[in-house]
Amino acid sequence: MYGRYTQELGVFAREEAARIREDGRHRRFISERSPSIKLLEYEKGRCVRCRICAVHCQRFLMSRVGEDWIFLILLGLVMALVSFVMDFCIALLLQAQKWMYGGLDSNVILQYLAWVTYPVVLISFSAGFTHIVAPQAAGSGIPEMKTILRGVVLKEYLTLKTFVAKVVGLTCALGSGLPLGKEGPFVHIASLCAALLCKFMSFFGGIYENESRNIEMLAAACAVGVGCCFAAPIGGVLFSIEVTSTFFAVRNYWRGFFAATFSAFIFRVLAVWNRDEETITALFKTRFRLDFPFDLQELPAFAVIGIASGFGGALFVYLNRLIVQFMRKQKTINKFLMKKRLLYPALVTLLISTLSFPPGLGQFMAGQLTQKETLVSFFDNRTWTKQGMTEDFNYDIHSTAWKHPQANVFVILVIFIVMKFWMSALATTLPVPCGAFMPVFVIGAAFGRLVGESMAAWFPEGINTDGTIYPIVPGGYAVVGAAALSGAVTHTVSTAVIVFELTGQISHILPIMIAVILANAVAQSLQPSIYDSIIRIKKLPYLPELGWGHHEKYNIRVEDIMVRNVRYITLNSTYRDLHEILLIANLKTVALVESAESMILLGSIERVQLQALLSQHLSRERRLEFIRDAERKRVSVVSTPSSEEGGQKVNHEVRFQISTEESSLFTPVHPISPKPLKPALKRTTTAEKNIEIPTSPHDSGIGLRNLLCARPQTDAMEEDPDAEDDMTLGEVEEWEEQQLDEQVNFNNCKIDPAPFQLVERTSLHKTHTIFSLLGLDHAYVTSIGRLIGVVSLRELRKAIEGSMTVKGVKVRPPLASFRDSGTSGTSSESEATELHKLWDRHSSRSIPREQQPNTSDSDDKSQ
Amino acid sequence: MYGRYTQELGVFAREEAARIREDGRHRRFISERSPSIKLLEYEKGRCVRCRICAVHCQRFLMSRVGEDWIFLILLGLVMALVSFVMDFCIALLLQAQKWMYGGLDSNVILQYLAWVTYPVVLISFSAGFTHIVAPQAAGSGIPEMKTILRGVVLKEYLTLKTFVAKVVGLTCALGSGLPLGKEGPFVHIASLCAALLCKFMSFFGGIYENESRNIEMLAAACAVGVGCCFAAPIGGVLFSIEVTSTFFAVRNYWRGFFAATFSAFIFRVLAVWNRDEETITALFKTRFRLDFPFDLQELPAFAVIGIASGFGGALFVYLNRLIVQFMRKQKTINKFLMKKRLLYPALVTLLISTLSFPPGLGQFMAGQLTQKETLVSFFDNRTWTKQGMTEDFNYDIHSTAWKHPQANVFVILVIFIVMKFWMSALATTLPVPCGAFMPVFVIGAAFGRLVGESMAAWFPEGINTDGTIYPIVPGGYAVVGAAALSGAVTHTVSTAVIVFELTGQISHILPIMIAVILANAVAQSLQPSIYDSIIRIKKLPYLPELGWGHHEKYNIRVEDIMVRNVRYITLNSTYRDLHEILLIANLKTVALVESAESMILLGSIERVQLQALLSQHLSRERRLEFIRDAERKRVSVVSTPSSEEGGQKVNHEVRFQISTEESSLFTPVHPISPKPLKPALKRTTTAEKNIEIPTSPHDSGIGLRNLLCARPQTDAMEEDPDAEDDMTLGEVEEWEEQQLDEQVNFNNCKIDPAPFQLVERTSLHKTHTIFSLLGLDHAYVTSIGRLIGVVSLRELRKAIEGSMTVKGVKVRPPLASFRDSGTSGTSSESEATELHKLWDRHSSRSIPREQQPNTSDSDDKSQ
Repeated sequence: MYGRYTQELGVFAREEAARIREDGRHRRFISERSPSIKLLEYEKGRCVRCRICAVHCQRFLMSRVGEDWIFLILLGLVMALVSFVMDFCIALLLQAQKWMYGGLDSNVILQYLAWVTYPVVLISFSAGFTHIVAPQAAGSGIPEMKTILRGVVLKEYLTLKTFVAKVVGLTCALGSGLPLGKEGPFVHIASLCAALLCKFMSFFGGIYENESRNIEMLAAACAVGVGCCFAAPIGGVLFSIEVTSTFFAVRNYWRGFFAATFSAFIFRVLAVWNRDEETITALFKTRFRLDFPFDLQELPAFAVIGIASGFGGALFVYLNRLIVQFMRKQKTINKFLMKKRLLYPALVTLLISTLSFPPGLGQFMAGQLTQKETLVSFFDNRTWTKQGMTEDFNYDIHSTAWKHPQANVFVILVIFIVMKFWMSALATTLPVPCGAFMPVFVIGAAFGRLVGESMAAWFPEGINTDGTIYPIVPGGYAVVGAAALSGAVTHTVSTAVIVFELTGQISHILPIMIAVILANAVAQSLQPSIYDSIIRIKKLPYLPELGWGHHEKYNIRVEDIMVRNVRYITLNSTYRDLHEILLIANLKTVALVESAESMILLGSIERVQLQALLSQHLSRERRLEFIRDAERKRVSVVSTPSSEEGGQKVNHEVRFQISTEESSLFTPVHPISPKPLKPALKRTTTAEKNIEIPTSPHDSGIGLRNLLCARPQTDAMEEDPDAEDDMTLGEVEEWEEQQLDEQVNFNNCKIDPAPFQLVERTSLHKTHTIFSLLGLDHAYVTSIGRLIGVVSLRELRKAIEGSMTVKGVKVRPPLASFRDSGTSGTSSESEATELHKLWDRHSSRSIPREQQPNTSDSDDKSQ
Repeated sequence: MYGRYTQELGVFAREEAARIREDGRHRRFISERSPSIKLLEYEKGRCVRCRICAVHCQRFLMSRVGEDWIFLILLGLVMALVSFVMDFCIALLLQAQKWMYGGLDSNVILQYLAWVTYPVVLISFSAGFTHIVAPQAAGSGIPEMKTILRGVVLKEYLTLKTFVAKVVGLTCALGSGLPLGKEGPFVHIASLCAALLCKFMSFFGGIYENESRNIEMLAAACAVGVGCCFAAPIGGVLFSIEVTSTFFAVRNYWRGFFAATFSAFIFRVLAVWNRDEETITALFKTRFRLDFPFDLQELPAFAVIGIASGFGGALFVYLNRLIVQFMRKQKTINKFLMKKRLLYPALVTLLISTLSFPPGLGQFMAGQLTQKETLVSFFDNRTWTKQGMTEDFNYDIHSTAWKHPQANVFVILVIFIVMKFWMSALATTLPVPCGAFMPVFVIGAAFGRLVGESMAAWFPEGINTDGTIYPIVPGGYAVVGAAALSGAVTHTVSTAVIVFELTGQISHILPIMIAVILANAVAQSLQPSIYDSIIRIKKLPYLPELGWGHHEKYNIRVEDIMVRNVRYITLNSTYRDLHEILLIANLKTVALVESAESMILLGSIERVQLQALLSQHLSRERRLEFIRDAERKRVSVVSTPSSEEGGQKVNHEVRFQISTEESSLFTPVHPISPKPLKPALKRTTTAEKNIEIPTSPHDSGIGLRNLLCARPQTDAMEEDPDAEDDMTLGEVEEWEEQQLDEQVNFNNCKIDPAPFQLVERTSLHKTHTIFSLLGLDHAYVTSIGRLIGVVSLRELRKAIEGSMTVKGVKVRPPLASFRDSGTSGTSSESEATELHKLWDRHSSRSIPREQQPNTSDSDDKSQ
């Protein structure tokens, strides 16, 4: 229910219609597919028994289809296949580039053209395809999934179109060889798979229409995405929890594990089946020695890697945001780029691939290696230097890329890190499906390797002094660096687990944990995570996290941030009030209070419901009926010409005082009422009115119909083609004015009887918790049943951002000083005052009230 | 706030007093320790600057002490030290037994006596010590922590006494060599550490008094406990989340990781420092080959281990519960054992150690090995058999225990598994601090080894057919089995991660994950986890989990399970109503509604508050004042003898109509009122009354005072020793009767203005989620502001247990059939009816109300 607030009426109506249509289809489908067993039993033939048995089996399977584990297995299977096929295609694309580059080694210019054109074409195609098919597919997808899992419905992000765009776009983007990642997009693709599978499965079982279940499945899908990407089920589950959830339901834990394990298993089995591997092993298997992986005295170096990675991660997020904001602010560039959408990706690709052209600058940064090859060479357990000099390491084709006759290994590594850093930050701003995890991971590994090689050069005999020589393993440092930098950028600790699963070794657990935690500590105090940064840039409806040191959050109360001027309707409200509220306020729900005087909160009504109420009250049918009534009355008036107006007025009053009996008659009146069979003569009148609407927008009665476009006029006309409408425009206006003054009849209105309520003294911390836990959009603030304010996500976000530690400086909580010196005083005091008032009011009530009806009738609300 | 409901008044008052006392002490402490800098600046001396600097530093440190990470580092450090010392002592105790046993090898009978007496003495001491110091320390502690983290305050479980009892008791229990675990107790010990540290730290900073923060810290402590126990930080965090939480706040994630990593680090560093290890390595380091850890075709065998472990785990939980219930049911045994508390532990220990006596039956089950040695031998990467025959494996002292001249390795393993299985189930019922994780882990490893050895015997050349011979590694099977069985018993998946960290190898990730998930699937469908089982046995206030296939949960609504007969008070309630409610209902909070007619929920009041209201209203001071008033009046009556009674009555009425002004005068009357200096002559009267109380328990006025024992009579007497009390008992009664008919004045009463509200149509699933998320104790069910029912944990638990899949049979949800055929019909219909009523009521109200005051005055509530 909560997530629905963001949907507009049109979307909701369309969706409902689609659901009903599908329901019907589904029922037809079932009835076609499973012929009744009883019918079969009466049939004769050779294989009746077999067929009965088959039907039984089918039914059993049908009933089983609703089980979670079947869905999860299917999801894992589909995702593993998608992932394997994509990996295969990406590898092919990368190989093609290498082949072209290698084949043209006679001419450097041709070689350069081939090297550069290929990625430019691929990226341009990817950007264009994504833009045409589904622009939502661009970017990582994790920020959007985070928002969706919070309960906000972003329907267009989970469609088949988006799936196609994401898969094709990502394959091309990664095939171009640019420093782009696939983790984020894989999370999105897995979620898309789950959503589509849910839709598909809903043909078989009704359970797939349950929204809360689908969200649970989406959470599992996120784990599957990461799990498939790295063949890391445990790390995948943890990473997806850390990245997408605020509060995690432990009962959903097994779902993620189950699906991710299954899909990682299939993913690796496919590799075995494809003869890539002999058995199931890790993706980037390392071969560090087990007996003495590292010395205790190496820990400070690991800690340094962690801290430096923290700063680096924060810098990366900042740089990424800076580039996006720069591109947005430069209006002339922006306009130009908006026109030629493919120019920006093409230019960026051209720049990056030119710089990494192997015979050019690329020779100083191992430009010819793909991401995967780079990682393999970094994670190697052999050192590249000896006594500070570059060793002759020809054992591996990948490692030779790091050897340069003129330059030292250290220089090459530094150039690699610096260049890749800004290249990755730039490349991840491209409007193609891409993530930032892998590029950052590679940069981290390079940094770790750099530190490791330095350590190896510094202590060529190892650090341990106990006799046995255990040389330093720079590959271990690379692993630590990779985990730390990617942890810092994404603000996660589980990159440590991902690294264990990726490398198949857990021997460096303590250095990795220490580095990751330190990196997180530094990065979290400087910048938001890359995903939160994107959420802010895209302005998605998400609640920011409370910072690390959130002590000051305990001091802000709801009363400091709530909006006191709440729009509400009362049980005595007239339709005019309703109309005004709908015109003025752009609320999704409106509070319903008992009366403007008591302000006791009874519930909340959705805007849609109010619109429906109003449109029904002013509908053509009611007007026609009114005319018919008037006609009938005129007839009776002809017979008894006395008390024409008086009689009607009495009738009117009676209707609104004994409205219960009346209202039950009210709705079914229309179908029962005898329709005079008369051709639709007056249609032109309606058409005229339709045309006239824009000319008098300020007229409340007609401007209203603009507002209430929920029910198209044409439908109404077709519905009731032979009704009479004798009223002139003036009469209609008069009638509507008259109708607007009537009291609202809430009988046919769906009221949410228990909207979430907070108290003035609820702390910001608790409010944040409740909002995140329950996925709220807004909450009313009440004081002993009385509505006194409202807090929505917007206020909460402002309050949190205002008091967040941005750029290291702690800002004072807003209004805190105001409150301290303000009226409220101590808690018990204010509560007592509040109660006082209530008691006052109550005791004044229990005195026989004479003025009461007056006030509630004249009821002039101050808003 | 929510957790407080379980506390009785006495506890609460005591705690409050303690808090205030401590506050004062703390302030004194601060002021003593940090002499004002300004003062210092005026002083003269050699090192004034140094001292100023020191004070600044001190202040800075003080302000830093509130930071989370300092607390977490301290916690990790303390816990690592405790854990290390305990491990050291346990190792010493175990060594002592071995030494005794080895020294007496000349005489079997003496050897037997030594072998048996030692554990009996240790266990008896442990049981006795625990019983005397803190009986809460017995058992695992995880069920209690689970309950505490849900928000229920079990104060006595987090005291220093419990800490001492747990540490000493656990050391002795584990030192005895019985199959007992330390994981659960370690979780408890870490939580105790955290709670005590919080108390200690609250001397320095106010932040440590925040309850929600303390619960966050306890959650981190649980992770530290597991992390220290196995030197497994990641597994520890995950295990503690799975075992203790229902909903996990991801923002607390880093706390667990940080503390657990730090403590695991220190724990392992201590081992290095102690020269046990050369560097930081895993606890049970394995040396399986990296290049080809297992073949794809071995996976079915791993799956078989998983499924069998699932059944085994369920059987273990069942057996454990059966033993407890059997001991409870046998009343004669029970009575006898209650008298001689140490007899049961001693007998069980005698039985177990007799059976494992190495020269006896122990030789067929490696009786001389400790748990740790057993595990090391199971995880060995060499096979014990060749071609089905026992190989000559003398390479290791531990492995020789598995070689027997007469028996096959398989036979010994089977005997070991069967014997240890029931022994462990029996031993974990002992009233000593002990867990079940480790014994189960060992049994699982044995089972895995059995399967592994069988596989090795079956395929002596390995399974792979590609040329290279990769023999099967039975140690890998042992690892898989250990993870699967412990996962099945505890219903967790994270045992897989614990195993990786324990062994330092992650190469078997897929087999382990598959086995653990299968084991969980089987075990969860058969039995609750061992911790949930203990929660049920101990009847702790915990909400059971929704089962795996909880589709039927979507069909039960709150209206099916709520209690419709809610006790409430209204704004018009008299003190008599209050008294009745307090006497009849044993509620922790009472609902406050506007009036019995409208039933609009205004809030809830705690029982304590109501008791205070009542006792204040009937207090001696008020009575004395009443007497004084009467006296004064009599004096004035003497001067103007007319309208004696009338005047008082008017006064009385006026007071309760303009009660706002009155009540502000009300409380401060006592200190201002002139005290007539008179010796306490009438004390005997009060004493007499005190004695008379038990004789007339049915008298409401005096039985009341029994109820309101919150304020001891003696205190009141000492407070106001020289007041006069001239009334006779009859007069007092009359006065009290009169007072009871007055309307309650809620001015000085603390009302919770927003108790949690549900709607009738809220599903059981959602209710469960909300209750678990917010740690609720009860929630009111309202319909458009009107109170119509209440749901407490009890109802919810019943509903869930009623519809839970116990022993494979799915029970129909209670009342579901009733509801289907019942009155409610479709949702919209019932809502419309509900609204009807409201509107009815409202429209009838908006008619000028003459009878209103009558009804609200005479106000006879039907309960």
